[in-house]
Amino acid sequence: MSHETREFFTVRRVSEALAGFRPTRRTAPEEVSLAGARGRVLMADAHAPADLPGFARATVDGYAVRARDTYGASEGLPSLLDVHGTVAMGTPPERPVPAGGALAISTGGALPPEADAVVMVEHTAETMPDTVEVMRPAAPGDGAVRPDEDVPAGGLLAQAGRRLRPQDLGLLAAAGATHLMVHARPRVAVVSTGDELVPAGKVPPPGRVRDSTAAGLAALVEEAGGVAEPWGIVPDDREQLAAVLAQAVAVSDAVVVSAGSSVGARDATAAAVAALGPPGIWCHGLRLKPGKPTLLAEAGDVPVIGLPGNPQSALVVFRLLGRDIVRRVGGCMHPPVRATVRARLERDVPSVAGRFDVVQARLDGDLAVPVFGRSALLSPLVGADGFFFVDEDAGGLYAGTEVEVEPYA
Amino acid sequence: MSHETREFFTVRRVSEALAGFRPTRRTAPEEVSLAGARGRVLMADAHAPADLPGFARATVDGYAVRARDTYGASEGLPSLLDVHGTVAMGTPPERPVPAGGALAISTGGALPPEADAVVMVEHTAETMPDTVEVMRPAAPGDGAVRPDEDVPAGGLLAQAGRRLRPQDLGLLAAAGATHLMVHARPRVAVVSTGDELVPAGKVPPPGRVRDSTAAGLAALVEEAGGVAEPWGIVPDDREQLAAVLAQAVAVSDAVVVSAGSSVGARDATAAAVAALGPPGIWCHGLRLKPGKPTLLAEAGDVPVIGLPGNPQSALVVFRLLGRDIVRRVGGCMHPPVRATVRARLERDVPSVAGRFDVVQARLDGDLAVPVFGRSALLSPLVGADGFFFVDEDAGGLYAGTEVEVEPYA
Repeated sequence: MSHETREFFTVRRVSEALAGFRPTRRTAPEEVSLAGARGRVLMADAHAPADLPGFARATVDGYAVRARDTYGASEGLPSLLDVHGTVAMGTPPERPVPAGGALAISTGGALPPEADAVVMVEHTAETMPDTVEVMRPAAPGDGAVRPDEDVPAGGLLAQAGRRLRPQDLGLLAAAGATHLMVHARPRVAVVSTGDELVPAGKVPPPGRVRDSTAAGLAALVEEAGGVAEPWGIVPDDREQLAAVLAQAVAVSDAVVVSAGSSVGARDATAAAVAALGPPGIWCHGLRLKPGKPTLLAEAGDVPVIGLPGNPQSALVVFRLLGRDIVRRVGGCMHPPVRATVRARLERDVPSVAGRFDVVQARLDGDLAVPVFGRSALLSPLVGADGFFFVDEDAGGLYAGTEVEVEPYA
Repeated sequence: MSHETREFFTVRRVSEALAGFRPTRRTAPEEVSLAGARGRVLMADAHAPADLPGFARATVDGYAVRARDTYGASEGLPSLLDVHGTVAMGTPPERPVPAGGALAISTGGALPPEADAVVMVEHTAETMPDTVEVMRPAAPGDGAVRPDEDVPAGGLLAQAGRRLRPQDLGLLAAAGATHLMVHARPRVAVVSTGDELVPAGKVPPPGRVRDSTAAGLAALVEEAGGVAEPWGIVPDDREQLAAVLAQAVAVSDAVVVSAGSSVGARDATAAAVAALGPPGIWCHGLRLKPGKPTLLAEAGDVPVIGLPGNPQSALVVFRLLGRDIVRRVGGCMHPPVRATVRARLERDVPSVAGRFDVVQARLDGDLAVPVFGRSALLSPLVGADGFFFVDEDAGGLYAGTEVEVEPYA
């Protein structure tokens, strides 16, 4: 109990939580088709089984030549080469280019044997039949890619631990990959607590409200590449909650529980999480606004994220910390770079040194207009185009300060 | 024919294309469940059927009071109020607070009749049974949200023409929405041409390569909220291509065709697109690198995007222009704000005034390291963390210049 009590009061800074809470669980491998692999995370680095593109290819329309036959060529004194036909697109390069000769070739065509450059058609003239005048010298390699210039055999196609982007899928397709071994999507249990809640599909009787947080959390889980599994609403009762959380931990890759809003409900949640066993609660409380009553724990290797009961706080905290945890469990070791829009603050934003603030903002031209509103409300998040931070070491920001607003997608 | 010929040479600036090519087609409505609505686009604004949260709710743990009973209270001279019990969480607020009285209440509880404020427990002391000392005055409205403070009845919950974000789904859930009318996902036909191509699943014979562009394009279409429909590879033949494109236009919301890489193949593609009928080709050629041989057209109200044959160019152009077209057809009238990371250029980047350049870059600390490579190669895109622009009016950028790198997700 003294152990529990101590951990209950481990309040941390956001920077500590971002750097220090690193669950080790990783989802199992599964095979997906290339067409369904966008955003998925490779289990292992993918290497090219052979050179890409695999043969020397023209990158311009023109004439395949032996470069040395063009040395010294100029508009005044062009090299005259005999044209021995045309390289048909998509056919193997059989006829070699003889010394002093050339073959017409289109972009993408395979360089014939003995050719080591392609002269752009713009630098040539066909003034006599079967003869081409080359007006500029070509160096070996001009106008063509080498057989291994995209990726050499054994070279890296795509890295493990990163979400696959469109261009990664393109390069994997070029190398002949049709199926990939990726991390399974993390199954994330979304548990709500609170005697005041009814499911989103029901009409709340007087004194109750619909569970709005679960719907928002499910969408954030999906954004992070996870599969949200709704576990419904559990009463504010330590025993019941502990039982549900234990079940959820047993079958999930991560568990998110949004606590009831009262202090009593939060305490029940914390006690139920502590009862899940070691390694237990890593932090209870963040120096964060909104989102102070946040709880980070692990039960075995399953991360358990206890979110504040206020819907706005819950969504802010999960965006800040939860998505990265879900990504990591899904094998993604590279959180996305924080991309922002620069804007000037339209008004002063108060804060407290030592506390990290997430401030909602509307973008209005180059102005960031803070959207304030109590954390029990969701409308401030809905009215915002994005958010910015007031760092732990800042005591607030003055109007006119440049802030970096991270827009909602 | 003269009409066709003229349009073939309408070369445009990227800024013109972004501002001026605005297809009018919109996909039909379809109903989706709230749980499946992330990223979808509402057909019509959604309004609240009733006040949210619907009743005055405590935002703190403490005591529901009549504010006037606390006026003048201080630590030295607290107001003494009779405690008449506790508001049970999730129950209708029945017992009124009498003058000079208070009810204990938890965050999220319904304010009882006659109460107009909640005093935080931190500003009270219970020194005698059934009596609470209030040490600070409360103003009406303190410690509680109004019944319509999140959204009043009839107020806007979520806007048409925007992709639904997690918080939008939360607020819609709070208002009782379980199903939504959204725009159907645009069906985007992806057509490849090129006698040098084989499907990604096949082993290319000598002189041919796999179709890598289609896989990358499909993923970009998905990112834009569309459904990519692979139409396979069509030979570089104007008649065959025209027939396939006409079929694709008839059953798709947008058509993307990546041309063969040769000039002849590009001309065949342009001719086939021109043959689709009015309004026809809007531009053929962009002052863009990579991506000059881009073609934008409409056949009836179906946008047709002709992409360069080089895989890198095709993916760059589709990211720059194609995704926004797909989004728009899918009802999304607000393209996402361009969020970037600031970095200093590691080396000079040459360009040409009047041409818009998309430069791939690796992020290395606060440096942007340009990743150059011929546009026939995909590896430069794969090696990049993002990209930046050299605007049409710039002749190039010097090392050390600050650039805004848009990271790949």
